[in-house]
Amino acid sequence: MHNVVISGTGLYTPAESISNEELVESFNCYVEQFNTTNAAAIEQGEVQALGPSDAAFIEKASGIKSRFVMDKAGILDPQRMKPRLPERGNDEPSILCQMAVAAAEQALQRAGKTAADIDAVIVACSNLPRPYPALSIEVQQALGIQGFGFDMNVACSSATFGLQAASNAVQLGQARAVLLVNPEICTGHLNFRDRDSHFIFGDAATALVVERADLATSANQLAVVSSKLLTQFSNNIRNNFGFLNRAGEEGEGARDKLFVQEGRKVFREVCPMVADLIAQHLAENNLQVTDIRRFWLHQANLSMNHLIVKKLLGRDASVEEAPVILDTYANTSSAGSVIALHKYQDDLPSGALGVLSSFGAGYSIGSVILRKL
Amino acid sequence: MHNVVISGTGLYTPAESISNEELVESFNCYVEQFNTTNAAAIEQGEVQALGPSDAAFIEKASGIKSRFVMDKAGILDPQRMKPRLPERGNDEPSILCQMAVAAAEQALQRAGKTAADIDAVIVACSNLPRPYPALSIEVQQALGIQGFGFDMNVACSSATFGLQAASNAVQLGQARAVLLVNPEICTGHLNFRDRDSHFIFGDAATALVVERADLATSANQLAVVSSKLLTQFSNNIRNNFGFLNRAGEEGEGARDKLFVQEGRKVFREVCPMVADLIAQHLAENNLQVTDIRRFWLHQANLSMNHLIVKKLLGRDASVEEAPVILDTYANTSSAGSVIALHKYQDDLPSGALGVLSSFGAGYSIGSVILRKL
Repeated sequence: MHNVVISGTGLYTPAESISNEELVESFNCYVEQFNTTNAAAIEQGEVQALGPSDAAFIEKASGIKSRFVMDKAGILDPQRMKPRLPERGNDEPSILCQMAVAAAEQALQRAGKTAADIDAVIVACSNLPRPYPALSIEVQQALGIQGFGFDMNVACSSATFGLQAASNAVQLGQARAVLLVNPEICTGHLNFRDRDSHFIFGDAATALVVERADLATSANQLAVVSSKLLTQFSNNIRNNFGFLNRAGEEGEGARDKLFVQEGRKVFREVCPMVADLIAQHLAENNLQVTDIRRFWLHQANLSMNHLIVKKLLGRDASVEEAPVILDTYANTSSAGSVIALHKYQDDLPSGALGVLSSFGAGYSIGSVILRKL
Repeated sequence: MHNVVISGTGLYTPAESISNEELVESFNCYVEQFNTTNAAAIEQGEVQALGPSDAAFIEKASGIKSRFVMDKAGILDPQRMKPRLPERGNDEPSILCQMAVAAAEQALQRAGKTAADIDAVIVACSNLPRPYPALSIEVQQALGIQGFGFDMNVACSSATFGLQAASNAVQLGQARAVLLVNPEICTGHLNFRDRDSHFIFGDAATALVVERADLATSANQLAVVSSKLLTQFSNNIRNNFGFLNRAGEEGEGARDKLFVQEGRKVFREVCPMVADLIAQHLAENNLQVTDIRRFWLHQANLSMNHLIVKKLLGRDASVEEAPVILDTYANTSSAGSVIALHKYQDDLPSGALGVLSSFGAGYSIGSVILRKL
């Protein structure tokens, strides 16, 4: 059985970003148009007037100031309010593949490896672009990687669950190294007309090279010490878009075919589950919370992260202990905790311990203990 | 590290089935209506007349005589030609969950285990019903299973790839047993108006209990000896339906948003890949082809299976060596090889070796060597 390290991390950040102010201007324009168009019905109490959004409220409620996106113009067009991503031919690379490849190339470079060193590709993300062929196989081909690939989905926790799957394959000798990628176009499944959630998501892709420790040559290695996963069913974050919609056509295009969330319930239920899982995971590994130098947490909501780390530490965490990327990236689903890991690891001294933790829809929660080599 | 066995298999077969004759009658009714409606344009050479389908041709070309389906009436209605599966509320079990649970209950019973003995659920299939929450977590809840779950997709090979993932988790002590389920409503992504492919798919669900050998108590155990996976990109089987379609709306509802295949190319390219992979896998395990008592192959096309086993054995295989379920089930994607395994294992003597092999879109190919205990 082989020891396993993360020998390289990579990040693709879209070229365009949208500030809260820009997003709110577009949303409020939509609201004004809606209320004007429906003025008579609103007057008669048949239709409810929409209320405006507010940039300061968004930042206060979520910690988000802006988000990177794959298509700014389409999202901000009040007549459209969704990204415009023209169809591509089957022989062109898909947009999620391109994002994955960009992140992967950086991860390979940081690992000091090439496609010839990789034996498998796992794509793990919260929304796959098509049922077949698997996106992982397209990524494999784009990079020239032999071996095998498959796609996984367990929403926001796809990165930690994917990391366990990748680590298992390396430990058991099925691959010298696995490329794990988390490409997310979250703006593709966000309802930009919903005031409660129109601000929460951004787009990004991350990549990890998960490699046999004895083959790794990278200067920045993190040993995969242990992982612990937990899922518990909840409808509080749900999206019913799927291939069977055409068989139940009465619901096609309805609101539940995009992201829908009961935010307050999620906050109340998920925070204690995450803190408990991490505490239990550390205890099983004979570690104290104070042994952990850094928590790379899923980036959905700043107050959630504050609460989770406070439950663990018994005090507020510093930004060095629990880095934040949510302010500029928003929630990028599975990519979030890996973006934090990618950006905040090089300063760690040898031997330092960290926890990569994801949580979200499902509910799904993952905790991976990493040790800087 | 733990040894791993399949301690139970399960199968859910839909109540309704459609014979070739029934399917062809509906298709030809559609063709007649189309040609009548478009008679003038066909006459002027602007529209191409559609040709009829033929039950005897279907059986000769594929080996399929009938298929089980989740909704016969909707598929056979010439005005509809797709299953009618009414939308369900979020608090009702989804239809794929129900199919998965039915197969799982049989697998648990055959394994002599209950939900309390299972620590993880993997749903692996060619089309997931929604992005989140993961179907695996819904199955977990429906059965009362603690632990974790995630969804996987690598099309027709989802069962063998899922079996490797499940086996890895058990080997490494992450789960005492994993429930692997393959629920497939293939008729939901089949274009019943396409003469070349309208007959190929059926619906079914399979389940495996993948368990630590030292905990298994079942009378019918198959040791998981070794697995080998391979993927190589191809557009010859493709379906572009997905969450980004709304961002490229010019293509919404187009033919490529359902199953599309270049059947002859697939036949020519995939058969040698499968035979080579199995041969290589056996050689790596110091086994001869003649050591293998049974090949539980993916069930897509009878000639493909004949050719693959002939390439391996150097002669035609008997139905005992390569059992066929395709005649009554058609292609059920990831479920196919597991249906063959489920139906044709109890007669094997202790020590007998078999190969479970999947192949299909991606391309994706899996080979798992099993030994009857």
